[in-house]
Amino acid sequence: MSTDPFRIGLLGHGTVGSAFHELLEARADAIAAQVGRRPEISGVLTRSRGEFEDVLERSDLMVEVMGGLDPAHDYVLRSLEAGKHVVTANKQLLSQHGEELHAAAARNGVQLGFEAAVAGVVPAIRVMRETLAAAHIERVHGIVNGTTNFILTAMDRTGATYDDALREAQQLGFAEADPTEDVTGKDAAAKMAILARLAFGAPVKLADVPFEGIERVTPDDIAYARELGLSLKLIGSAERIGDGIAVMVYPAFLYAGHPLASVSGSYNAVTIESPAITEITLSGPGAGGSQTGSAVLGDVISAMSPTTTKLPPVQELPIVSDVASAFYLYVEVADRPGVLAQVAEILGLQGISIRSFVQRGIGDDARLVMVMHPILESKFRAAVDMIERLDFVRSKPRSIHVIEEVFE
Amino acid sequence: MSTDPFRIGLLGHGTVGSAFHELLEARADAIAAQVGRRPEISGVLTRSRGEFEDVLERSDLMVEVMGGLDPAHDYVLRSLEAGKHVVTANKQLLSQHGEELHAAAARNGVQLGFEAAVAGVVPAIRVMRETLAAAHIERVHGIVNGTTNFILTAMDRTGATYDDALREAQQLGFAEADPTEDVTGKDAAAKMAILARLAFGAPVKLADVPFEGIERVTPDDIAYARELGLSLKLIGSAERIGDGIAVMVYPAFLYAGHPLASVSGSYNAVTIESPAITEITLSGPGAGGSQTGSAVLGDVISAMSPTTTKLPPVQELPIVSDVASAFYLYVEVADRPGVLAQVAEILGLQGISIRSFVQRGIGDDARLVMVMHPILESKFRAAVDMIERLDFVRSKPRSIHVIEEVFE
Repeated sequence: MSTDPFRIGLLGHGTVGSAFHELLEARADAIAAQVGRRPEISGVLTRSRGEFEDVLERSDLMVEVMGGLDPAHDYVLRSLEAGKHVVTANKQLLSQHGEELHAAAARNGVQLGFEAAVAGVVPAIRVMRETLAAAHIERVHGIVNGTTNFILTAMDRTGATYDDALREAQQLGFAEADPTEDVTGKDAAAKMAILARLAFGAPVKLADVPFEGIERVTPDDIAYARELGLSLKLIGSAERIGDGIAVMVYPAFLYAGHPLASVSGSYNAVTIESPAITEITLSGPGAGGSQTGSAVLGDVISAMSPTTTKLPPVQELPIVSDVASAFYLYVEVADRPGVLAQVAEILGLQGISIRSFVQRGIGDDARLVMVMHPILESKFRAAVDMIERLDFVRSKPRSIHVIEEVFE
Repeated sequence: MSTDPFRIGLLGHGTVGSAFHELLEARADAIAAQVGRRPEISGVLTRSRGEFEDVLERSDLMVEVMGGLDPAHDYVLRSLEAGKHVVTANKQLLSQHGEELHAAAARNGVQLGFEAAVAGVVPAIRVMRETLAAAHIERVHGIVNGTTNFILTAMDRTGATYDDALREAQQLGFAEADPTEDVTGKDAAAKMAILARLAFGAPVKLADVPFEGIERVTPDDIAYARELGLSLKLIGSAERIGDGIAVMVYPAFLYAGHPLASVSGSYNAVTIESPAITEITLSGPGAGGSQTGSAVLGDVISAMSPTTTKLPPVQELPIVSDVASAFYLYVEVADRPGVLAQVAEILGLQGISIRSFVQRGIGDDARLVMVMHPILESKFRAAVDMIERLDFVRSKPRSIHVIEEVFE
């Protein structure tokens, strides 16, 4: 293992920058074990401290999380020309000066990572660059702006107006004080330009992407569309049309069966279509400092270790077999008084509580169907064994795991 | 650009092998343009033709798509020891001899790619190895067997029995004549062992993974559970429990809000949870020769070009702005006879047909809400302009794109 640390210069130390910094320190040992070099922050540049040239000189890789074009454009270009890898989360920069930066990276033999610029934790860039390298991509469809998806989800669930849903999003930190870039679709358009560039190898710029936002959507539109089985999303679309391509952003209704229809709250998702694979859909939280910082870190590790031969070092971990889970239980019983009470008593003895319950009479018999709150599997099995031995139980009880909702 | 081709030896030429072979030839030029070397098949070994030593000698990389342990285990090991990269789709091999093979790859400084062994086109391996390299993964949950998901989806949609749904899956090619490995959960257990190895860095083997299949699921279970808002999936689960891990496969009911609940038909999906990212969900077709062949090809390209600096060469493509789409239209009109007829006539003149329609009277006015079948946007806009000029139209019509269902 080399003992030289891998030196990272950090341009910007706001929400994303500080989350990245923290994550890097927390994972530095694990990274060192995996790729053979320990990453460390060699310098930080903010508005109030640090000198760019000084940070550049002391770094192997520059992380640019300042945002905006000036001075980020100049800094990124100079970093690449100085032979440093760059990882950036800057969608404006990529969507307006992508060709120049990609050319500079190639000319200097360094990596330019930009996973964090597009869709939060959703690894659309990596999947297109690597899993689908050289694939013929027909279409990329996505929900690439978490703010608008949060607002549309709130309007759909509560019937709120656009203005009220926007205010809620601002209060909860899902929309900025000035939400213009997000709600007009411009932010999504920049991301679609980056995705289209990768999907089709064509030099698509932000200016090539017409966009329409969600400001004029009404609760009526959403309510009527629901009657027709539709839900509203702000969709970024990039597709081949004959020998050309079309890249645009617009609000769109999706039928319930569409893979993007169930993406709710501030989540992002991208569906990539190619004849050989049919499609791949990727989804996850769309933003947040820790999520974006994690996407930056993935690119940093790739730049540190261009081959992916190595697996994490092996460690023995005990295998646990008795795990807590919610459970479904189906019991056929004689339909007579006291049956439910005895079943419930056995469950109570094992500390099991019932979350929901259905009973159906079928001739002289009844079916009890219930879902339990999470409990250690051993306790649940003990209860089922006791229930099976009750004299009014007609057949072997059936049980199935239940997985609870994920909180978004 | 190097003029030496990159030589690929192909072990096995069944469904996956021949699909990979075809895809490789179709994309060879694009791959050469991107990574600087042209891939070619240097030899093929099947039961009836070819000599292993001969293919090995003439190859830089071996693709193993024979399946089974014998002779695949021996061939893969000898390939790695001979300093050749290996890409395999063999889940049995990885889940039973993974440590030995990973060690051999590391010792010989070559890559061992196995994306195709786990979840069809779903790039779970790459995302864990690269995007989440050195992340602390808490849990991996997935639907990693397309056959059982197809059967459960059919039972849910049609009320079919397990036996009938299995027969349908066999007729449509989604289940094998002997479906034992799939329906008992053993196939999913092998895949979960591979995913758990990656997620936790612990040497999990197939023998460590208890599995339960779907053979005893009844239409009653599914029907009762639906009343409780649940749908049934065969879930592979790998999670940290205290200082240990639990890896298992079982049928489970999921609440509708769970990201895996909407994964239907033969699709696979994997959700990876880590504190820094919350979660990433990846989904797509679970199997099929072309899909698995595409996953193999992604690993082959990674082995050819360990750095991902390069982007595809840029080509100018015309930007198309008039694209066909389905549309939603909302019009407020005076509630009087003949209104709908005039609106419908204008739509008909532009060749637009109505897919669904809602009308609501509101006092003296009415709201017409309709969804059109796909039509060029220019034609739709022309119709909307004409409708807006009708004397009974009360306000500016509102229109929104509609994205149709994806066929699975």
